[in-house]
Amino acid sequence: MRMLLTLVLLLSAVPVLAADRDCLDCHREETPAAVRQWQQSAHASSGVGCADCHGEDHDLILQGKAVVGAEVCGACHRQALAEHRRSRHGQGLHSGWGCTRNMPDRNSAECGFCHQEGSSLPVSTVHCARFLEQSGEMRQNGCNRCHSVENSCGSCHGNHLTDLALVRDPQVCAKCHMGPDHPQWEMWTASQHGQINKVRGRVDGPDCQSCHLAAGGHDVSRGITVSPGGKPYSEQAVKAERKAMLAVCVSCHARGFAMRELQRGDRIREQARALVDQARAIIEDLNDRGLLRPGPEDRPAHPLRGRTLVLDGQMLYENISHIERLFFKMQKYDFARTWKGAYHQNPDYTHWYGNAELKMDLVDIRSEADRLLNFAEPKTGTAEPGAGQVPGDPTKELERLRKRFDRGGMSDEAYRAEKQHLLDNWSRNK
Amino acid sequence: MRMLLTLVLLLSAVPVLAADRDCLDCHREETPAAVRQWQQSAHASSGVGCADCHGEDHDLILQGKAVVGAEVCGACHRQALAEHRRSRHGQGLHSGWGCTRNMPDRNSAECGFCHQEGSSLPVSTVHCARFLEQSGEMRQNGCNRCHSVENSCGSCHGNHLTDLALVRDPQVCAKCHMGPDHPQWEMWTASQHGQINKVRGRVDGPDCQSCHLAAGGHDVSRGITVSPGGKPYSEQAVKAERKAMLAVCVSCHARGFAMRELQRGDRIREQARALVDQARAIIEDLNDRGLLRPGPEDRPAHPLRGRTLVLDGQMLYENISHIERLFFKMQKYDFARTWKGAYHQNPDYTHWYGNAELKMDLVDIRSEADRLLNFAEPKTGTAEPGAGQVPGDPTKELERLRKRFDRGGMSDEAYRAEKQHLLDNWSRNK
Amino acid sequence: MRMLLTLVLLLSAVPVLAADRDCLDCHREETPAAVRQWQQSAHASSGVGCADCHGEDHDLILQGKAVVGAEVCGACHRQALAEHRRSRHGQGLHSGWGCTRNMPDRNSAECGFCHQEGSSLPVSTVHCARFLEQSGEMRQNGCNRCHSVENSCGSCHGNHLTDLALVRDPQVCAKCHMGPDHPQWEMWTASQHGQINKVRGRVDGPDCQSCHLAAGGHDVSRGITVSPGGKPYSEQAVKAERKAMLAVCVSCHARGFAMRELQRGDRIREQARALVDQARAIIEDLNDRGLLRPGPEDRPAHPLRGRTLVLDGQMLYENISHIERLFFKMQKYDFARTWKGAYHQNPDYTHWYGNAELKMDLVDIRSEADRLLNFAEPKTGTAEPGAGQVPGDPTKELERLRKRFDRGGMSDEAYRAEKQHLLDNWSRNK
Repeated sequence: MRMLLTLVLLLSAVPVLAADRDCLDCHREETPAAVRQWQQSAHASSGVGCADCHGEDHDLILQGKAVVGAEVCGACHRQALAEHRRSRHGQGLHSGWGCTRNMPDRNSAECGFCHQEGSSLPVSTVHCARFLEQSGEMRQNGCNRCHSVENSCGSCHGNHLTDLALVRDPQVCAKCHMGPDHPQWEMWTASQHGQINKVRGRVDGPDCQSCHLAAGGHDVSRGITVSPGGKPYSEQAVKAERKAMLAVCVSCHARGFAMRELQRGDRIREQARALVDQARAIIEDLNDRGLLRPGPEDRPAHPLRGRTLVLDGQMLYENISHIERLFFKMQKYDFARTWKGAYHQNPDYTHWYGNAELKMDLVDIRSEADRLLNFAEPKTGTAEPGAGQVPGDPTKELERLRKRFDRGGMSDEAYRAEKQHLLDNWSRNK
Repeated sequence: MRMLLTLVLLLSAVPVLAADRDCLDCHREETPAAVRQWQQSAHASSGVGCADCHGEDHDLILQGKAVVGAEVCGACHRQALAEHRRSRHGQGLHSGWGCTRNMPDRNSAECGFCHQEGSSLPVSTVHCARFLEQSGEMRQNGCNRCHSVENSCGSCHGNHLTDLALVRDPQVCAKCHMGPDHPQWEMWTASQHGQINKVRGRVDGPDCQSCHLAAGGHDVSRGITVSPGGKPYSEQAVKAERKAMLAVCVSCHARGFAMRELQRGDRIREQARALVDQARAIIEDLNDRGLLRPGPEDRPAHPLRGRTLVLDGQMLYENISHIERLFFKMQKYDFARTWKGAYHQNPDYTHWYGNAELKMDLVDIRSEADRLLNFAEPKTGTAEPGAGQVPGDPTKELERLRKRFDRGGMSDEAYRAEKQHLLDNWSRNK
Repeated sequence: MRMLLTLVLLLSAVPVLAADRDCLDCHREETPAAVRQWQQSAHASSGVGCADCHGEDHDLILQGKAVVGAEVCGACHRQALAEHRRSRHGQGLHSGWGCTRNMPDRNSAECGFCHQEGSSLPVSTVHCARFLEQSGEMRQNGCNRCHSVENSCGSCHGNHLTDLALVRDPQVCAKCHMGPDHPQWEMWTASQHGQINKVRGRVDGPDCQSCHLAAGGHDVSRGITVSPGGKPYSEQAVKAERKAMLAVCVSCHARGFAMRELQRGDRIREQARALVDQARAIIEDLNDRGLLRPGPEDRPAHPLRGRTLVLDGQMLYENISHIERLFFKMQKYDFARTWKGAYHQNPDYTHWYGNAELKMDLVDIRSEADRLLNFAEPKTGTAEPGAGQVPGDPTKELERLRKRFDRGGMSDEAYRAEKQHLLDNWSRNK
């Protein structure tokens, strides 16, 4: 019936151009869903046809290379594109295509991974975000099915439908915002917000869009006070974003209540970060001692940093040692779940999936450090707290102290005190 | 339209008292959702206003300290509160506020953690259930967002709505009954009960409330035969609870069928417990040998038990050894999933998330025990089955045997036989 | 109202036979849901009564042994049963009852595990699929609640309802197709197909049934190009199945697009398999060196293969070494998630739950191999890539090389070259 109605509408009211009719003749058979969905769309009824978006190079289309990028949509939807470009979705901060292109502190060496000098097109051998040993297929299905959002309106809107119900449904966010590293969808679903939403709809139970696109539009980052890597912005930026989010909260809640909730999230993030920092210090110390197996010298060089230990957002999860892999889980999965769980009011993610795992990660990392230290050498001296016993060659100890000081792992004062302590011990034992 | 209707109803029919009008004047702006939801509520239409629940101390309210506890609701909803108090939800068995307050075999030392002598109010530095190193923020977002249920009707009902559809929806239970330790929501959703519920509603497909609140009311523990720690009740209590649950099952199923299903769950619980017991014995044996790193003597004292090995429901998951952390996952997560999965008819939780993990936990725990034993000393003698080879000092062996006997780890007879065996070996080898 | 209508219909129009009336007299009380659901069913309205399916041996029924198998339904629903038998669901490929009964390359020794010679009935001590140490209860709740599908139409259709909405709802598949080993339900739910389905229904957003039962009927395996163990079929079979699946895809998509999507899935499966193969080779090498603890000789014999290392689909997950358990997770869970995630267009399962885990599994397996090798002997020579240093006894080395060659782990040429290399080294060092 609906089909019939659509057909009638199509035949009577919609101005089908000659060019479109040419496409439709075949594509009714060749891509029936695309045609059917377009026919029901606002595009069809306002005379936007196939070639307007797809172009007219049929060979390119057949090879799957005539990608309808965001600029194609932006030709008409100018404000939407501008909003999208301003948001994290549109900045290519971490996408397989965009990588670190627009990051203020990007490493210029990174550009060469995706681009020939002077070209803004990706080269064909482009690796994905973390520059892993990734095939083209994994890059496309695993990385870019999400990270293509920079340049693909269809990533959220779908390709031929223009039904806004699709992008007003919270599950549209799930495709990417789920899983071990940022399960916002799962968190929200089982939160009080999510449950009330299920029973009474979005007026009483807010969903993704209620808070993150409160004013409509396309700027999904409004009100978020941390960068994609989880680091807080500058104090000034935090203030502005916090103000924007509070403006959303107070459309339901008392300002004081909302402020307290958000600040509790901030503090949980900092507390969780402190656990991660403890683990990082243990691994850096092991690396200073040359105890990682394989160590940074024994494995393929890191694409951006070379043969050094990388434990930040560019950290890899292949060709590393077991203890680094434990740390990857801790930082990328459990840290994120803890604080995102707190901001999304989900106790199970904050605690069991988050904070409890962080604490158990620390148990595992300390235990593995203990094993590596004890396997290596007979025991004397002390290491990073929790890392067990360490060997006593004073020259090596001094060198390690220096390395730790150099990477900001201890204060000026602590460095001087520990150095003196070592030298005293040494002269006493000579 | 609905909004308009509500407004009309409000203006015409509902008796708004002077005091409430005072609140509303500001709170229409300050907490719009609260006002809107209250206006639609049974409270508004029966003349229960803001101050009736929140009191009149505006300073306290502004600081977020004027908590509307269960007693406030119970002043009118007396039967509901009585039912709630009788149920596990209302007993504070393991809550951040209530902890072990009402447990029959509670350790009186526990009271001091939450209360000053003679006071029933929690002290401000109260730790949560397991007495972990927890911040106030984690306690509130991670622990008490669930464990506040003891004293918060809003935990299930929400705060200003009185729409019973909210608490008749199974997802209301998900906020707490999900995740690694007790994923009842996930289990049910994908079970046959859950699927039929989705398609045909609760008459044909029962939900949480159908079985656990079959008679209406607030006693969520009716028909459950184990304590929160997974231990079976006394035989008599089990009989009474089983009878209550069977009365629910037979409203759909044949008595014999239902009985068989429940008994199969009982047996799976016992079989799963036997795997956990094997693992516990291995770790206790390692502790007797002083091989845990860190051992109970090398870490912060357990808040309730001091410097001893704790592997029961008060077990911590911080500052412990790697093998204990493996055991924590086994007992708290995988054991629970196995038997709860069985009772909730979900094969994937019973088997893959449950029993298969238990078996793999045992592989990991035996392997770690083997590593600890072999790292420690040259091999002679035999240890706990699966724990590999052990050293042969007869005095130490006798001492360990004694410890194991003392904690109930072996029968009187087995103790005597093994002791004789050791002494014989010793005199033979002298 | 609906109940009333049903009742009226029942009393007036449905021919209730004398025998059924006898059942109903008691069963209205005894199994109210069964009676109510039957009364609403197509069976009732077409005169199919209790005894037609359940038989008349009330004692057997009371003991829960009068199972209504697929043949009972097939007596009327002949085409449905034939379709079911042709599909993977009906072949008992890996079921607790059917095991490997109909597999073309089954090991005849397997039959004896379930059957007395000449009998097609399972013996009472039957073990489940992988022949683990499983209780009868776990077999029933954990294994056969899914693997009974071979012989149980009710597994999908439910037992007394004949409402086809039940089996047209994708969640009916979730009961079994979820969880760590094959989370197709979770994958689809959060995919673009799943999200559009939620908002606009199955015409625009296809569900399980849209693709896997496109032509209706019961052959769920149509269009699937791999066996349950993940191995590709013969080239010819692949071609036929691929053609069948493409016929489904093109009902919406362009043929070229669909072909590219499916082929990308194929390649991701092969790439993922290569990671699994790397890990397998490391473990086989360790086994050749006798370094697994417990090794195949030190544990209960594998029920089908005896005291050898089993790393394929018959691999157990109990009484094995830690490194084998890591491999079990890698092959059974993470490999499956990677390629099934790709075919189901879910980036998070393809990448984070899949490929990233595979890479981290390899890190863990290499690290454990390194530990086993280094714990065992002082270091010389080289082992399987990634497995660290190995000892240098030339006779043993030659024997290991031979074993590896024999199991197809290296080419004829590589074998000859490595052998020569070893002999040269040996004579040089003598």
